[in-house]
Amino acid sequence: MFFKEIEGGSLTSPKGFVAGSVSAGLRDQPGTDLAILLGGEKTKAAGVFTKNQIVAPPVTLSQRHLALDDPRAIVVNSAIANAVVGQQGVKDAAKMASNTAGKLGLEVSQVLVCSTGVIGVPLPMDLISNGIEAIQLKQTDHEFASAILTTDTKTKEFTISVDIGGTEIIISGTAKGSGMIHPDMATMLAFLTTDANISKECLDRVLRQSVDNSFNMVTIDGDGSTNDSVIFLASNESSMEEINGGERERIFQEAVDYVCAHLAKEIALDGEGATKLIEVIVEGAATLDEARVAARTVASSTLMKAAVYGNDPNWGRAVAALGRSGIKINEQTLFLSINGIEMLKEGTPVKFSKEVAAQSMDTEKVEIYVHLNSGNYSAISWTSDLTEEYVHINSAYTT
Amino acid sequence: MFFKEIEGGSLTSPKGFVAGSVSAGLRDQPGTDLAILLGGEKTKAAGVFTKNQIVAPPVTLSQRHLALDDPRAIVVNSAIANAVVGQQGVKDAAKMASNTAGKLGLEVSQVLVCSTGVIGVPLPMDLISNGIEAIQLKQTDHEFASAILTTDTKTKEFTISVDIGGTEIIISGTAKGSGMIHPDMATMLAFLTTDANISKECLDRVLRQSVDNSFNMVTIDGDGSTNDSVIFLASNESSMEEINGGERERIFQEAVDYVCAHLAKEIALDGEGATKLIEVIVEGAATLDEARVAARTVASSTLMKAAVYGNDPNWGRAVAALGRSGIKINEQTLFLSINGIEMLKEGTPVKFSKEVAAQSMDTEKVEIYVHLNSGNYSAISWTSDLTEEYVHINSAYTT
Repeated sequence: MFFKEIEGGSLTSPKGFVAGSVSAGLRDQPGTDLAILLGGEKTKAAGVFTKNQIVAPPVTLSQRHLALDDPRAIVVNSAIANAVVGQQGVKDAAKMASNTAGKLGLEVSQVLVCSTGVIGVPLPMDLISNGIEAIQLKQTDHEFASAILTTDTKTKEFTISVDIGGTEIIISGTAKGSGMIHPDMATMLAFLTTDANISKECLDRVLRQSVDNSFNMVTIDGDGSTNDSVIFLASNESSMEEINGGERERIFQEAVDYVCAHLAKEIALDGEGATKLIEVIVEGAATLDEARVAARTVASSTLMKAAVYGNDPNWGRAVAALGRSGIKINEQTLFLSINGIEMLKEGTPVKFSKEVAAQSMDTEKVEIYVHLNSGNYSAISWTSDLTEEYVHINSAYTT
Repeated sequence: MFFKEIEGGSLTSPKGFVAGSVSAGLRDQPGTDLAILLGGEKTKAAGVFTKNQIVAPPVTLSQRHLALDDPRAIVVNSAIANAVVGQQGVKDAAKMASNTAGKLGLEVSQVLVCSTGVIGVPLPMDLISNGIEAIQLKQTDHEFASAILTTDTKTKEFTISVDIGGTEIIISGTAKGSGMIHPDMATMLAFLTTDANISKECLDRVLRQSVDNSFNMVTIDGDGSTNDSVIFLASNESSMEEINGGERERIFQEAVDYVCAHLAKEIALDGEGATKLIEVIVEGAATLDEARVAARTVASSTLMKAAVYGNDPNWGRAVAALGRSGIKINEQTLFLSINGIEMLKEGTPVKFSKEVAAQSMDTEKVEIYVHLNSGNYSAISWTSDLTEEYVHINSAYTT
């Protein structure tokens, strides 16, 4: 492996980044809830956002600033999503950007804004403005990762170093998950930093590909929320030739894929009430798109997720999900195994010990492997199991 | 209303039908599990089947017989789906048809076959053959409705009479639901009979439209199973001119819609672990297809279903589902109410008492109403709430 994990790393591990956070008072519970990440003057930025038709104002603003300028600051709040609050939301997102720009001496278009939390509630802008003012940016920061959390049970950070043509660069990421509690808080946010020297165009290309293979393959309850955002800042402060194509981009891509997949799996495992990570591997699909659709459909089957929770090797649920995925399935060529135990071969059930299979599923990670035998494309999707605790948490009426 | 419910009616209430069932020994528990329905010589038949790519052999056989002939008998077994068992399944479905044809003195192509139950297990054909032989057909039968059940907690029968141009005809239906337990048993079967005089072409047209507005709008865990079938037999034994178009077809269509919608709601309410029926009404969509997609996406949101279980008026979950439904949504024109309490108007939250809303949701039926204000099309989808009991049942490992 090219990659070396940096234990205890954070978004400020790559050269050129500072970050900080405060408790602005947005949460019911104690804890930080507002954070800023800032890259140096040579920073390039790329972003990938929700495909939901209901888009929160911070997302629209960030998309516009990325198209206009080279943003190098991100301001993020948790607890409130600033979504579905009418025109007030547009004004509040703009104010978060202008306050941050004022504090940091930047153009407004150099600031990106992210919000996550409850839908339909306006931001308390006095608390936000005071909070932005109070944030102190530090060269070694670990608070950003916790300030962005909503119902997550732990922070998700992952940092690696990788050698690209003789130069050691660092890539770091942090994410918050869809929690599974409070769908209105089900936003996925991820932030990546690197000190690699890379063009904006290349950074954008690499990020899009990594997101498609990682965050877009995590399914907890369904599709994207109103606020989903993945943002990648590259400080361009390494002593290397700019990455833009060829072998060096390929290595960089692999490294970013590795960081994103790690974070995606952590998000799946931290689904509320979850006891297991489920990895659905689909191979032998006719196209990449069909591989992804097949993997995601199996991973989003509530019945499959409930079966995995109960250590039930109920492969029929996976086959029924494949059949309704909308892609072309040839029953006669289907192969399926769970944790390596063959259950279906050429569309015909294979005899296996249910007891042995159930024992093998009694772990923190369950692998459902499907071979469609229709082509050469593959995809992996991640999800968590469905537990009584999930229902309990999501049905609790809270006023 | 044109329609009069016939209390205690069944599939044999319309003139020209006999039915019967036996306990063939397919179930672990006692109870009937094999049934035959037979119409008279003038019977016309129509069928609508699963869109799942994995199609069980009885479905393929029934589709072929409907294309070839005028089938007038249906043989149905529960407990085992005869799905995903390789070539053996094709042979077994053919044998069920030929045994039934032999018993009744029909051509094989006059018999339709339905199976529902566990996937991946071959049918015990000796039990099936003996069972078919033992079935006694009666003019007044109520056993067919229970022989087709798997994990349903009760039979679902509904019979009405309707006056079409001065002739009183009868329409009856029975269904089994998706149970929500054992996805591998999640097949939906429905059977309809009428004594109306109607052409095959018209019967087919009416059935397709009714199914789209009823059974296809019930969502429990996702889309169709490998075995879903809705079959409509018309005995043509009334003393009326054949229905084929115009006002008389329109009235007949409404009556069939009424029966199918009634059965669809019963299926939703009988979802395993369910405590409530959820009715999602979408109006103001740009097209009929968009209305249906929007209603179904909200109804299939696990988070919305869990919120309803807990009497939580969490409208943000419905809005997020609408946004990811794939149809064009204009946030600025969105209206939403739950049980008549306005929560969102022109995309802006409306103040309401959460306590009052929660109290109003503490009933057996919860209505989520959405107006998109993008056009004139509407649709209704039905589902049940998501409960801990659902997870408990579906995760129970059973060998």
